[in-house]
Amino acid sequence: MSFEIVSSILKRRGVCIEDIAEIVYELQLPYHPQLTMEECVNSVTAVLNKREVQYALYTGIALDELAEQKLLPQPLQSIMEADEPLYGVDETMALGITSVYGMIGLTSFGYLDKEKKGIIEKLNNNKSAIHVFLDDLVAGLAAAASARIAHRYEGAKNYSIPSDIERS
Amino acid sequence: MSFEIVSSILKRRGVCIEDIAEIVYELQLPYHPQLTMEECVNSVTAVLNKREVQYALYTGIALDELAEQKLLPQPLQSIMEADEPLYGVDETMALGITSVYGMIGLTSFGYLDKEKKGIIEKLNNNKSAIHVFLDDLVAGLAAAASARIAHRYEGAKNYSIPSDIERS
Amino acid sequence: MSFEIVSSILKRRGVCIEDIAEIVYELQLPYHPQLTMEECVNSVTAVLNKREVQYALYTGIALDELAEQKLLPQPLQSIMEADEPLYGVDETMALGITSVYGMIGLTSFGYLDKEKKGIIEKLNNNKSAIHVFLDDLVAGLAAAASARIAHRYEGAKNYSIPSDIERS
Amino acid sequence: MSFEIVSSILKRRGVCIEDIAEIVYELQLPYHPQLTMEECVNSVTAVLNKREVQYALYTGIALDELAEQKLLPQPLQSIMEADEPLYGVDETMALGITSVYGMIGLTSFGYLDKEKKGIIEKLNNNKSAIHVFLDDLVAGLAAAASARIAHRYEGAKNYSIPSDIERS
Repeated sequence: MSFEIVSSILKRRGVCIEDIAEIVYELQLPYHPQLTMEECVNSVTAVLNKREVQYALYTGIALDELAEQKLLPQPLQSIMEADEPLYGVDETMALGITSVYGMIGLTSFGYLDKEKKGIIEKLNNNKSAIHVFLDDLVAGLAAAASARIAHRYEGAKNYSIPSDIERS
Repeated sequence: MSFEIVSSILKRRGVCIEDIAEIVYELQLPYHPQLTMEECVNSVTAVLNKREVQYALYTGIALDELAEQKLLPQPLQSIMEADEPLYGVDETMALGITSVYGMIGLTSFGYLDKEKKGIIEKLNNNKSAIHVFLDDLVAGLAAAASARIAHRYEGAKNYSIPSDIERS
Repeated sequence: MSFEIVSSILKRRGVCIEDIAEIVYELQLPYHPQLTMEECVNSVTAVLNKREVQYALYTGIALDELAEQKLLPQPLQSIMEADEPLYGVDETMALGITSVYGMIGLTSFGYLDKEKKGIIEKLNNNKSAIHVFLDDLVAGLAAAASARIAHRYEGAKNYSIPSDIERS
Repeated sequence: MSFEIVSSILKRRGVCIEDIAEIVYELQLPYHPQLTMEECVNSVTAVLNKREVQYALYTGIALDELAEQKLLPQPLQSIMEADEPLYGVDETMALGITSVYGMIGLTSFGYLDKEKKGIIEKLNNNKSAIHVFLDDLVAGLAAAASARIAHRYEGAKNYSIPSDIERS
């Protein structure tokens, strides 16, 4: 049920799973030409089923919404309204999402957070809403889903060791 | 001025700089017998002067206070009221504080977060308030201030390299 | 096969899976009185099956072994021989293991890294070997395996949201 | 003296401070048009003076060099030779550098690690050497130096709070 909650909250903020899957598709296609959108949707869904990911999303989105409603205490309200570039708590929170399939996700996270592809750009350009956290969290989601795909596709490769190690 | 803001907000939540400095003192005294409380207060002050630390504190404390006022959207409100042990966003946010003097602070952070010494225990036992974030953030502050002291005391040690490396 | 490789390398360094499972058992028993050692062994095994965990172990153990063989370039060789408390790369690398089940593992990691329970203490006291990385990595493994158990036991709890959110 | 050591080791691996400063300059110029190369060199120098940064560089570069000399134990030697994309320990180690001026550096790190600008591309294209760690570490250095510049330029901005908070 918690997946339904988190996806409905994302939808409320203008983000659907396909939006995130499209970013994953664009990011991973060069490395895996046989990749399908369905696999990307599945990968985003798998990431969204992780409890720590849901909790980060609940928290970041709550902060965005409370800022829109001007309910945050000062000076946080002003910092969020200014989308202060030195804030950094959004990147920290996204790190908690990005790292669920290992630190290889850091590269994609940073790239997406700077290049602002697809839905991330839309969130960023929507000046009527506050998306201090959501753009980073979506970049983190796409990065984690990409890392998951990378792990799956590379799954067969094995690095052997000389057999005497196992005996020693 | 931002130091005055962050220390007044901490005070509003029942934490003064000396409370944190006492934890640092207890943690570092075994390694540095000549350590004084004044140095510990200075170290906590230095950590609190860092902007990323202030931002993490504003954010975490805002979440605690909004939870007390029952202003958070669901399901976050219930998660915060339950002090859900799997929440993890508090630890993630504390990581952003703990790491300002390098990752050596991770050990002290985890130790303090589990042992709940001094003011951390008081925060944790105060059942009339919500301190989901504050106890982790204070553990993070004490860990960062301890790491800073460790860096200062060990400052003189130098590891040399064979002189031909510098020539090569 | 990669699980066999990583467990044989751990064994070569004096650590067997049961050693790590015992730490997990001690750590989690107070929260889950019905916990069995078998579950702890399974949890450690699950963590060790993650590729990013294996890679961190290969790397940290290689550095320990190369330091014993005096094959590291200076000044790293001297830093490792001194088990320099400010080194921090060992904690950073352990973070990559600890975080595979979310940042809730940070607390256990830091606690174990300071308290040095069971096999961690043995590694630390063995003065004939260099275990700069291994003690932190084992603390990271035990912390991740503990986080995994916490996630499993709490799996049933759900935080509901008012039904109108899903309709909105 | 430790700055001389770390800069000489970087030079040995084909990286001079100006190479890193150029990346910082390109990254930060759009935000701070009055930025000079001298400031970027100073910022890189400040980052390289941090002990935790030096330790990460010593360690990552040692692993690259030992891989070139085929001195790493298996399966790590093969993983490094293949520049395995799922390795992730290089990103983890770079995180320890990137975070020294807060988590805002994560975005630049990921961007640089993917776009491979300037010296990072040269390191990556040099097929006669192994730079599994160095390209990530240089991206981490440039990201940290950029974060430092961002903190300095924005230093004057202050978010005030209603005066009654300080009285309460």
